[in-house]
Amino acid sequence: MSVAPKANPPIRTLLGPGPSPVNPRVLQALSLPVVGHLDPKFLEIMDQSMAMLREIFQTKNRLALPMSGTGSAGMETCFVNLIEPGDAVLIGVNGVFGTRMVDVAQRCGAQVDGVEAEWGTALDPQSFKAALGKKRYKLVALVHAETSTGVLQPLDDIARLVREHGALLLVDAVTSLGGAPVKVDELGIDVCYSCTQKCLGCPPGLSPVTFNERALEIIRNRKTKVQSWYLDLSMIEKYWGSERLYHHTAPISMNYALHEALRIVLEEGLAAAWRRHRQVHETFIREMRRLEIEPAVAESIRAPMINAIKIPAGVDDAKVRQRLYDDFNIEIGAGLGPLKGKIWRVGLMGHGARVENVEILAKALKQLI
Amino acid sequence: MSVAPKANPPIRTLLGPGPSPVNPRVLQALSLPVVGHLDPKFLEIMDQSMAMLREIFQTKNRLALPMSGTGSAGMETCFVNLIEPGDAVLIGVNGVFGTRMVDVAQRCGAQVDGVEAEWGTALDPQSFKAALGKKRYKLVALVHAETSTGVLQPLDDIARLVREHGALLLVDAVTSLGGAPVKVDELGIDVCYSCTQKCLGCPPGLSPVTFNERALEIIRNRKTKVQSWYLDLSMIEKYWGSERLYHHTAPISMNYALHEALRIVLEEGLAAAWRRHRQVHETFIREMRRLEIEPAVAESIRAPMINAIKIPAGVDDAKVRQRLYDDFNIEIGAGLGPLKGKIWRVGLMGHGARVENVEILAKALKQLI
Repeated sequence: MSVAPKANPPIRTLLGPGPSPVNPRVLQALSLPVVGHLDPKFLEIMDQSMAMLREIFQTKNRLALPMSGTGSAGMETCFVNLIEPGDAVLIGVNGVFGTRMVDVAQRCGAQVDGVEAEWGTALDPQSFKAALGKKRYKLVALVHAETSTGVLQPLDDIARLVREHGALLLVDAVTSLGGAPVKVDELGIDVCYSCTQKCLGCPPGLSPVTFNERALEIIRNRKTKVQSWYLDLSMIEKYWGSERLYHHTAPISMNYALHEALRIVLEEGLAAAWRRHRQVHETFIREMRRLEIEPAVAESIRAPMINAIKIPAGVDDAKVRQRLYDDFNIEIGAGLGPLKGKIWRVGLMGHGARVENVEILAKALKQLI
Repeated sequence: MSVAPKANPPIRTLLGPGPSPVNPRVLQALSLPVVGHLDPKFLEIMDQSMAMLREIFQTKNRLALPMSGTGSAGMETCFVNLIEPGDAVLIGVNGVFGTRMVDVAQRCGAQVDGVEAEWGTALDPQSFKAALGKKRYKLVALVHAETSTGVLQPLDDIARLVREHGALLLVDAVTSLGGAPVKVDELGIDVCYSCTQKCLGCPPGLSPVTFNERALEIIRNRKTKVQSWYLDLSMIEKYWGSERLYHHTAPISMNYALHEALRIVLEEGLAAAWRRHRQVHETFIREMRRLEIEPAVAESIRAPMINAIKIPAGVDDAKVRQRLYDDFNIEIGAGLGPLKGKIWRVGLMGHGARVENVEILAKALKQLI
């Protein structure tokens, strides 16, 4: 038998697109004693996490819970539960995750139309208005903070248009939740999903989602079964609800970690957390400008937690990122798709959104470029 | 803002159907520093886990990896990747998990026939022979250790029949892997899935799966896209393979835990681990008989890691289980479906398969019944 050596991962400063640095309190929570998924003490923890998720999603929705998979499982949860074959869906596409939504929706049999914008720019409400005027859509979906481009999408106008046209509004808050306001109830967002490993400061593994009553009603009135058993909310809500019906064995340790991460967010306070992300972002932009590195996104739509910066001319993208790993134990993100080789993505998220991390990175980049 | 109290789960002796007790080394691994999902050091850990999974699945299959969800996600992975609408599937049904397979397969559009047996008994190879003689099936699926009944299904004859008829063989080894031989290559099992929280002694959250080349060829030749984006192995194998293409953010901490759990299994040695599960099981049966509690399953098909015992006449099922929690911090499992109120299910799995746990439980039951 060949036993692998004990895992000994390095201590990195995680300034990429996620996972973000994890508060030691959250790492400790992972090691709490494992109990059963129907243990009365675990059920209490579940209830508390739901209550805290509601606060962070700024919603009164009953259904706010972590799905047992990463953010992409959360995305899939929304589509498989709401969509039936032939349903018309309108999706904003200006980065990797809008593109992924199209793929996921099509796998559910949706008839998908896209509202496109260049990667690195925001989606235009006028394009939604035009599309919504031409066709009746069951669902409109878009990404709040596009991790692949660093754009924070303004939601207010699009949300209003979607409401006026009677469609369901689905928002990807994978990267924004906890780092910028995600006003689920105020904007009339019907369905929203996120992840644990960005601004919530928890390791990856779970995906918080929230559905309002209107969305749940759609699920109740489906003609076909949800195509995914694992992500079928009509069963999962009976485990997280008062029935406590066994569905699948919940990831106990990851739920401990999320519980502690949510506590940390609410201890600081949502508004304070948003402010901290904004301030650290501003410091970052200033520091980069001192190195003559320019932001890649227009000021009004910069996502504070995921910063796209232009790779200076003549600098070797891959080599710099490798030396950041090797010489400084710092991770930053590469560009994706059309932005590959053109931008770096610097995550300043959750526990990682601290001025000292900006300073560490600026000092390293100064030596490398 | 209402911050929940810090989670403070009790220390239970987990003798239910899973999660099983976790070795402290595995709990420690959960707290290792989080790195990125494309960090070179994490990629090494992934490769090592794949190699160790191959040994434990007793296979030379290239594809052996943990899916980023619990055992039920592993089940769904197998069906969504292999099945296209209209495919004929034959499933053994003699408990909760065979029943669940039928549901999952139907959600993929499969035409499902069932081979049934009474809950608590084994599936009869003759029934498979009869069914396979009547119709051509793409896939035959059955459960190795039925967690809901405590039956360890003999696989040899059925595996031979399935091979003779040219169908794919899919085996659920959720509860057996690590606690009894799961001879993937020797029996010609094409596809097999398991979980982390039973005989591998890790918290719940991941689902190891293995697919042989024949099964992968089926995926490559699909006419339709896999209906689940999150579980699409044609993409996931490019992240776990040499391409290292980003698919979703792997659950880093859970992967550390699995890595350590696999190390522990292989340090002990597979044969020694199987022997230990068998010996502890025999001690358990002896101890229960001293309390005049009888096993619910015939001797030749008893699963050593999940023991179904008859609740003695006149004993209050729910009350005894509650007092085990409250007075002894012991968890055991209730009966499910037709066995509700008739049996208890005692898991002696992984790190929990120790004689001292049998003694703790026997002593407690002696006081309670």
